[in-house]
Amino acid sequence: VTGPRVAVLSGGVGGARFLHGLCAELPARDVTAVVNVGDDFEPYGLHVSPDLDTVLYTLSGLIDDERGWGVAGDSARALEQARRLGDEAWFWLGDVDLGLHLARAALLRSGAPLSSATATLARRLALELRLLPATDDPLRTYVGTDAGELDFQTYFVRRGQRDAVRGVRLDGVATARPAPGVLDALGSADLIVIAPSNPLISIGPILAVPGIRSAVAARRAATVAVSPIVGGRALKGPAAAMLRSLGHEVSPVGVARLYADVCATLVLDEVDDGHAAAVEALGVRAVVTQTVMTGHGGRRRLARAVLEAGGLRCPVAAGP
Amino acid sequence: VTGPRVAVLSGGVGGARFLHGLCAELPARDVTAVVNVGDDFEPYGLHVSPDLDTVLYTLSGLIDDERGWGVAGDSARALEQARRLGDEAWFWLGDVDLGLHLARAALLRSGAPLSSATATLARRLALELRLLPATDDPLRTYVGTDAGELDFQTYFVRRGQRDAVRGVRLDGVATARPAPGVLDALGSADLIVIAPSNPLISIGPILAVPGIRSAVAARRAATVAVSPIVGGRALKGPAAAMLRSLGHEVSPVGVARLYADVCATLVLDEVDDGHAAAVEALGVRAVVTQTVMTGHGGRRRLARAVLEAGGLRCPVAAGP
Repeated sequence: VTGPRVAVLSGGVGGARFLHGLCAELPARDVTAVVNVGDDFEPYGLHVSPDLDTVLYTLSGLIDDERGWGVAGDSARALEQARRLGDEAWFWLGDVDLGLHLARAALLRSGAPLSSATATLARRLALELRLLPATDDPLRTYVGTDAGELDFQTYFVRRGQRDAVRGVRLDGVATARPAPGVLDALGSADLIVIAPSNPLISIGPILAVPGIRSAVAARRAATVAVSPIVGGRALKGPAAAMLRSLGHEVSPVGVARLYADVCATLVLDEVDDGHAAAVEALGVRAVVTQTVMTGHGGRRRLARAVLEAGGLRCPVAAGP
Repeated sequence: VTGPRVAVLSGGVGGARFLHGLCAELPARDVTAVVNVGDDFEPYGLHVSPDLDTVLYTLSGLIDDERGWGVAGDSARALEQARRLGDEAWFWLGDVDLGLHLARAALLRSGAPLSSATATLARRLALELRLLPATDDPLRTYVGTDAGELDFQTYFVRRGQRDAVRGVRLDGVATARPAPGVLDALGSADLIVIAPSNPLISIGPILAVPGIRSAVAARRAATVAVSPIVGGRALKGPAAAMLRSLGHEVSPVGVARLYADVCATLVLDEVDDGHAAAVEALGVRAVVTQTVMTGHGGRRRLARAVLEAGGLRCPVAAGP
């Protein structure tokens, strides 16, 4: 017996938490996550994939839930020693976390593409969902600011998101190809979900890989997005300020405008009920529910709401 | 007032311990170490220089003295996680040790040559001696065995030195150039010391860098070697078996034959007193003393014996 298959476009924390709830509501083997790699970078030559890592850690239970990233209880003896030796070490890397980056480095250096290295790591962490980078090719997000164009992690971590964002450029996007399995997953899914992640720098770089946006648009009727903007704010990260500085409305309406060609349904929070009519005026069905994922129960509740919005019955009826 | 200047050709443990004693007997700023890089390799893309690291750790006091390498009390959370994720991780890297490799990786990736990166690390560890790699160029030792040619760390660590050594090949040696400062240090030293390190795979790759062997030979009268073979055995590492399988005599006589063109004096241990005449028959003066470096006192005693053998008075007269 095979249940419904769900493909999820995901960034980091919000997407990972949604996937965590979804994999408690559906058999995880029927879930495919297609994850942003625009934030990837190579400190010390080690390939770090922050969004893939957050999914790996959240679904394996290793996650530091307080911060939303990294490994709970991790030490940073390596990084502290690097600092003592004069390295700036502005990107936090815990020791256990470094172990994952070492293992991935070994896989990539042996010639494995990122998708294959990611599958190996997911399997070793006993994850049953299918975890795919949007692309195996080097697609990197750069942010235009008044201080010049910055690579994503310089903007996000090193400078603490203090710069107003004037533009987003996806380096390498023209020649990037969807990673193996991505188009198949989108084409065969019973439901495609756009997770509550930053539309511009998490979901945007996924949809921008040539072939992905059109593949989702072709399944528009089966696609449900979740607004990451709740009550005019992003629950995590710089989405609100970034939408504003780039001229988008900081509300589910602004989100719906960005997604109107790819999704028929937008799930928005009860506090944004007043925006439902404006969303629907864009030709996007508005489903109003509690979207804030408080605790594991909140993650499962949102997953059920999205499955229902997508017309799928939940195989697990009960739940907190 | 400037004291005598000493240049030391050094491998790992034996050389580092000798340097430790020497820097207690002389102002460390008058000591230059020229260190083997044939053992260097790049696990996970991080440049590891085992011999340079052992000198850094021994002279800074971070060393795990029991093992002779690595940082005392270091954890290995990163490596253990890499193993859990399926990586073989056969080369032990402690967490604090990894921090040094990260700091070096950042320096090298910024364009610094190995000599400059090494100087930075030595300065941050408050070392006063001048620490130079023999070369900044990629010189790598390969070992011929019945199992095929192996890179040095595969032979040494991964396969635990279990293979009989049929030959040694120094990849890249033809185009390697002495690192900046090496020839100056050899030319201006009042004494050149060949530390008690493996003649074939520690000292050999240093002398094989074009220009270094001839520079030492030009100072033959001022050069003192210390036999790493004591009583037919190497105190550390595979030198004895390697000398034997490559057809050399496993005694100070075998060592003297390998060094006869570059040193006028060989320091050998009291237990090898019977070999002194055969050493001198090769045109190499034999100085017999206790060479085994037991404790810090033993390191200083050997340093004093070598300074005396080289005709230098010890500025520090006393000592244990």
